[in-house]
Amino acid sequence: MALSMYQASIPVFVHALNVLTALLDKAEAHAAEKGVQLSTLVEARLAPDMYPLSGQIQRASDACKFTIKRLAGVDAPSFEDVETTFPELRKRIADTKAWLESVPAAALEGSESKTIQLNWGDFKPSFQGDAYLLSFALPNFYFHVTTAYAILRNSGVPVGKLDFLGLSQG
Amino acid sequence: MALSMYQASIPVFVHALNVLTALLDKAEAHAAEKGVQLSTLVEARLAPDMYPLSGQIQRASDACKFTIKRLAGVDAPSFEDVETTFPELRKRIADTKAWLESVPAAALEGSESKTIQLNWGDFKPSFQGDAYLLSFALPNFYFHVTTAYAILRNSGVPVGKLDFLGLSQG
Repeated sequence: MALSMYQASIPVFVHALNVLTALLDKAEAHAAEKGVQLSTLVEARLAPDMYPLSGQIQRASDACKFTIKRLAGVDAPSFEDVETTFPELRKRIADTKAWLESVPAAALEGSESKTIQLNWGDFKPSFQGDAYLLSFALPNFYFHVTTAYAILRNSGVPVGKLDFLGLSQG
Repeated sequence: MALSMYQASIPVFVHALNVLTALLDKAEAHAAEKGVQLSTLVEARLAPDMYPLSGQIQRASDACKFTIKRLAGVDAPSFEDVETTFPELRKRIADTKAWLESVPAAALEGSESKTIQLNWGDFKPSFQGDAYLLSFALPNFYFHVTTAYAILRNSGVPVGKLDFLGLSQG
């Protein structure tokens, strides 16, 4: 085997949380230049029944937090989903990242064979830890990071694929 | 180590390609019910300088194809990006999936330590194989799958998170 559960989760999440922060920086600069209210961006969404930018960032935070909480069996902080400003969204991202970085790699050892059972009312899908990470947790996390990016693009913020990948040279 | 490079790539890509096909099925049913032209969906996009639905599917196909071609060092089919209809997009997905499934797991053995150099004009980022898969290839692939989903949601197609995750019970 070539990859550890740690390597495929915490550093991956931290990298993408840094991307979200950099996207907020570019969005704020664009808003200042164009006279756009930041609250307009925070509340922007792609469909009436999809989360706005704030909700996508909250869900990205929860997605990686619950992944590690479930796989490592450790306590995680509670976040109240009350962020409505750019500084509050930045703090949510920073708090999530700080907690992820506090979890030692050893906490994820053996988690590939752990049973992870989700509980959504009548629907209780069950996964082995490795499949949970690869086929549920990572796509679910990237769903929210990508949708946050897509909301900004749909709102005219000039970000590009290299920003999304964290490879921007600018 | 708990995960193989194969496990973290080909089955993950195949799962998400099946999701894309299922999303097209729901989009087609919605279009028939509402009298929406399928070409309108194929050409829908979230921003003027983003790819439309067809381009997102072509890029998702290329993203997983090039990932495996680079990591495994095997030949891959060439696709011409000429798809403009739902049947053509379904075929592109099916052809990509068939090729992925033809690559044996052994072809990815040792790819975690292979050097992968990308060549984008003056910018030539270099990765070790494991970092390439985890921090570039998977987010890049999910970017296009999520954006395809987001275009459909933005166009009013009634799909949900469980469809995106391939966990839909319906």
